[in-house]
Amino acid sequence: MGRGQTPATWVPGADGSGFGIEHLPYGVIRSGAWSPRSAVRIGDRGLVLAPLAAAGLLDSVSEADFGALRRALEGPTLNRLLELGRPTWSRLRARLTELLSAGNTEVDDAGIAGDALVPLAEAEALLPIEVGDYVDFYSSIEHASNVGRLLRPEGDPLFPNWRRLPVGYHGRSANVVVSGTPIKRPLGQSAPETPDGPPRFGPESRLDFELEFGFVSGEGPTGGGPIPTAAAGEHIFGFLLVNDWSARAIQAWEYRPLGPFLGKAFATSIAAWITPLEALEPFRVRGRDQDPAPLTYLSDRHWALDLDLEVVLVPAGSGEGGAARETISRTNARGLYWNAAQQLAHATVAGAAVRAGDLFASGTISGSDPGTQGCLLELTRAGEEPLRLGGGVERTFLEDGDEVILSGAGAPGEGRPAITLAEVSGRVAPAS
Amino acid sequence: MGRGQTPATWVPGADGSGFGIEHLPYGVIRSGAWSPRSAVRIGDRGLVLAPLAAAGLLDSVSEADFGALRRALEGPTLNRLLELGRPTWSRLRARLTELLSAGNTEVDDAGIAGDALVPLAEAEALLPIEVGDYVDFYSSIEHASNVGRLLRPEGDPLFPNWRRLPVGYHGRSANVVVSGTPIKRPLGQSAPETPDGPPRFGPESRLDFELEFGFVSGEGPTGGGPIPTAAAGEHIFGFLLVNDWSARAIQAWEYRPLGPFLGKAFATSIAAWITPLEALEPFRVRGRDQDPAPLTYLSDRHWALDLDLEVVLVPAGSGEGGAARETISRTNARGLYWNAAQQLAHATVAGAAVRAGDLFASGTISGSDPGTQGCLLELTRAGEEPLRLGGGVERTFLEDGDEVILSGAGAPGEGRPAITLAEVSGRVAPAS
Repeated sequence: MGRGQTPATWVPGADGSGFGIEHLPYGVIRSGAWSPRSAVRIGDRGLVLAPLAAAGLLDSVSEADFGALRRALEGPTLNRLLELGRPTWSRLRARLTELLSAGNTEVDDAGIAGDALVPLAEAEALLPIEVGDYVDFYSSIEHASNVGRLLRPEGDPLFPNWRRLPVGYHGRSANVVVSGTPIKRPLGQSAPETPDGPPRFGPESRLDFELEFGFVSGEGPTGGGPIPTAAAGEHIFGFLLVNDWSARAIQAWEYRPLGPFLGKAFATSIAAWITPLEALEPFRVRGRDQDPAPLTYLSDRHWALDLDLEVVLVPAGSGEGGAARETISRTNARGLYWNAAQQLAHATVAGAAVRAGDLFASGTISGSDPGTQGCLLELTRAGEEPLRLGGGVERTFLEDGDEVILSGAGAPGEGRPAITLAEVSGRVAPAS
Repeated sequence: MGRGQTPATWVPGADGSGFGIEHLPYGVIRSGAWSPRSAVRIGDRGLVLAPLAAAGLLDSVSEADFGALRRALEGPTLNRLLELGRPTWSRLRARLTELLSAGNTEVDDAGIAGDALVPLAEAEALLPIEVGDYVDFYSSIEHASNVGRLLRPEGDPLFPNWRRLPVGYHGRSANVVVSGTPIKRPLGQSAPETPDGPPRFGPESRLDFELEFGFVSGEGPTGGGPIPTAAAGEHIFGFLLVNDWSARAIQAWEYRPLGPFLGKAFATSIAAWITPLEALEPFRVRGRDQDPAPLTYLSDRHWALDLDLEVVLVPAGSGEGGAARETISRTNARGLYWNAAQQLAHATVAGAAVRAGDLFASGTISGSDPGTQGCLLELTRAGEEPLRLGGGVERTFLEDGDEVILSGAGAPGEGRPAITLAEVSGRVAPAS
């Protein structure tokens, strides 16, 4: 908020923070007063929703079953809210916007502002969802092309299917963790030094991050069934940053012919706060051209998201003030070749069932210019060209103690508020 | 039970049925009297466990928290029982064996036999677990070699990693269904007719079954961590037959480079009854030689299971009596190259977290002789050599209305009771 503008919310410090009233991302927090409960973030506070429901302030949200929303908000994750579906999500967001607007005194009048509005400095943001299935796509053509060139220099970097469907695979949902969780370097097999020798075994030598953007779903059609691109908005609850940590040496040895397994199954970090679809509407733009034109069920280019993304690396041993932190990649989510509606339509076309709390991630997001790649494999050309950081520090892959922070924002402009995506951080811990 | 032998259990008809007192597999049933509840199968009845706990008959099973088992048995799936871990599982099994033994009158004395012992003809056997993560391995060397030869005739059928680690990938847990669930033929993309043409789209033309054997886990180490082969028995609850239905044309087009996605994500059928690890102890044998010797963390050959397996195909249009049903494959689980302890050790070596209710399947089980292959892809050499069934019926892949029934048994012998694995059936329904 510029000086002299009318405040948008009565919550101090929230206007213009990137977590203003136009954003209201959902998460789960725990504090001295609260066991894990659903909340929306506004400024540097979490607004716990259960006391609002208990005080009757959310009664207008439920059209039929007045108890369903209240029960959903008493769960330790967002899953039960996700089960309630788009109409409830939209009414809840509208009502929360009303309650938090400047001049609205209902929360204060109910005498619950002190309890419900928790400073995040005094709370812990937990994993917001219990993930059902986790699908990871491969939807950046720059990333897929770069990786293809590095791994298969002899042939076409993209397989013939790549431009025809959003390639993806299932990851391990049990290892999805919230931002801030330490990432233990995995142990595992990698390729032998000589063709007939035994595989190497030990701590992963090529630990990498992957800058991704993902979405969390509500339920799909009962029993499984296609979600057409036109219905994506009914099923997509919101978006969040994802770091799909990758063990490149493990992956390179294991992945043929059934794809990544352990190299992607030790940790996937997600943001603590999920940005609702509505908050991103001002940033929806027409996506890039797709040539050849995709099949009809994948035909929808109106889901690109104009969001700036960046990766900060804080090398091990940096000063407490983070003096040596460096931005090592800057890109934008709008460059993704396949969008969320296409991903969801493809994932469900053959009958896959979708549950509330499923996670779908984009795959690494890379641009075409230097410094826009979303993982070290690309930024260092598979370790051939080390990143030179300040103070003479170099990196090919991640070292123990390194911290990676993914962040993103929608730039304010005509009709666009400032939106800051909740960051995803993780520091590498030694193998054990 | 032969004539004149002493009965082993007081439950009529159970002795010698393959579901005798030596077996006692776990499942979940629903009946007129019972909402979904955990049960063990004995003969053609399900013994619901909650009323036993309520009557105090299971108090000796709980060493510390007397309420935990009772609450676990009131859940709609086995997951909460699975969370309690091996010591509780073993004590529960010992106590149930005692209660069901011939001459024991405790259930009768408590006046609950009529309520707790439900004829399965009057009940529905439901999906027994809520699956956390589903991992599918590729552990039959005959299967992997056959498929390699069919798909990559120019090279070595096995990639260099195959003999070094149990290759696997994550499947879609939301689409795990219980035996008897109709299997809708998936729709999807398959390879274009010409290299530059659009992909084909429509009902899968090469729908296949896969004969697999799997296990269900309790919890792994907190926060994720390796489960050594020597500790496998602490974490493996039991085994069950699995049909990993496969859409071969979808899979062949989509699978590079990240592995199977939609071709394996529309349905995976599992048995309704999970055979406890202890019931299979008499069938544990030393497994086949592994050359080269696997790395130390994979070194354990004592988990092969001598169980006969077979696949019955009931072609569409067969008479009501199933006159045309034919056994199209016979094999044995002991031939698997990688065993369950090795699979679990590998799956967790890099830090993957294991939850109660995770499902790990073997991959297709094939032998080396004709008629021992566990899927149509192999049995028909990718459709080149149709199976000739009775009545002039031929099959390359599955047609709408075809039913596939997987079954298995441990052959009785010295110290071995007769154990019948619960079957897995599914009938193909048309695409829609």
